[in-house]
Amino acid sequence: MSGRLYIVGLGPADERWLTLEAQEALAQAQDLIGYEPYVARVPMREGQTRLASDNRVEIDRAREALERTAAGRIVAVVSGGDPGVFAMAAAVFEAVDHGPQAWRDLDIRVLPGVSAMQAAAARLGAPLGHDFCAISLSDNLKPWDVIEKRLEHAARGDFVIALYNPASRARPGRIADAFALLRRFLPGETFVSLAKSVGREKEEILLTQLADVDPAQVDMSTLVVIGASGTRRIARQGARDWVYTSRKAT
Amino acid sequence: MSGRLYIVGLGPADERWLTLEAQEALAQAQDLIGYEPYVARVPMREGQTRLASDNRVEIDRAREALERTAAGRIVAVVSGGDPGVFAMAAAVFEAVDHGPQAWRDLDIRVLPGVSAMQAAAARLGAPLGHDFCAISLSDNLKPWDVIEKRLEHAARGDFVIALYNPASRARPGRIADAFALLRRFLPGETFVSLAKSVGREKEEILLTQLADVDPAQVDMSTLVVIGASGTRRIARQGARDWVYTSRKAT
Repeated sequence: MSGRLYIVGLGPADERWLTLEAQEALAQAQDLIGYEPYVARVPMREGQTRLASDNRVEIDRAREALERTAAGRIVAVVSGGDPGVFAMAAAVFEAVDHGPQAWRDLDIRVLPGVSAMQAAAARLGAPLGHDFCAISLSDNLKPWDVIEKRLEHAARGDFVIALYNPASRARPGRIADAFALLRRFLPGETFVSLAKSVGREKEEILLTQLADVDPAQVDMSTLVVIGASGTRRIARQGARDWVYTSRKAT
Repeated sequence: MSGRLYIVGLGPADERWLTLEAQEALAQAQDLIGYEPYVARVPMREGQTRLASDNRVEIDRAREALERTAAGRIVAVVSGGDPGVFAMAAAVFEAVDHGPQAWRDLDIRVLPGVSAMQAAAARLGAPLGHDFCAISLSDNLKPWDVIEKRLEHAARGDFVIALYNPASRARPGRIADAFALLRRFLPGETFVSLAKSVGREKEEILLTQLADVDPAQVDMSTLVVIGASGTRRIARQGARDWVYTSRKAT
């Protein structure tokens, strides 16, 4: 008998951003697999096996999930945000691509979720209201010059830019390099937001501009949003400004 | 007494992609405002006013919602997908920006949802697993040369590309122009998917490549996904191939 593998997005914070579909899959799963803080967010259920692991072993985690599915288990791999955006879904399919032929016959279902950039955008107003891109600054798996090329084209194409993984213990300076590169193509008054721990208790959202942004304020929990020429800031009194990107391109 | 305005994303299809937060807001709203097919997707509730309108009056709809909120009502503006991505949130904040000062004091909350591109990606595998961008081909509000510039930089930057609004009654040919432009920068074997009515009864997903894609198969319900150099196709027997974008850039 063959099992089923759900690749589930938990959203960026608590269960209010969870979809009905994701809730049902989590309730059905016999085995729950994921990076420890994500597994911890799923309510305990009797009889459910929980396999929490370190962040840097995505491919091992994917293989473990596939092996259990092939053995007939109902498995859920959990990710924060949307599992399809810089998260576990790509790792699982990469493992399938390089794994045994039989894995191609498995019942694998990706369940979309709210990504960190969408949650940050919702808090800010509507900065992703027009053409945008998402770039991961992690250079664990891709060379830095590829990242530089993408940043350059994102800026020259006048996209709103969401930066994922802007900092790491191994390379804390990469966000400073990214801001320096973007300053070569974009005006100093370009809108920048640092959205930290969105939806969680420690949530903190800073609004600034490219000329002034301080890379030291960016940590691993930060989603960086960089505006386009059509991004506007609505001044408010006694409350944080709203930000949106006009649908009329300039 | 002041009201509250929720800008709610219903996801691309039925309620299984609805978040808990969105469900609560829809239950709480006294007035429901939106494009008719979206309003129709929300279960009827006694005492709730429903204002369904045509698709081309986004700004009027936004103003109506803001006026009712200012009058003390609990209002929900509903969008398909994520309201922050090519949808109502930007229209509401644009109306605030150009509206009476008092609108800046309103309690406005954007509730993120699953976007069409995430739902399409989930069905395909994990094509958005690495750097990607989203471009609307609608030229109602922006000149076509801006769209061309963005397509060119998206291609040269080796982004996975999600194309929204690829067709319209007014200009059915723009997707053909977009494919022609992309062919100047990308190899013919570049992965292309046409994902139609994802999550709905008429769902249809085609996998092809840039050299072969037929623009006549693109309609208003289609989300077009164009792969990057790292996008891989996993051949399967008796089932649609899976597609993912490798986290290792080439």
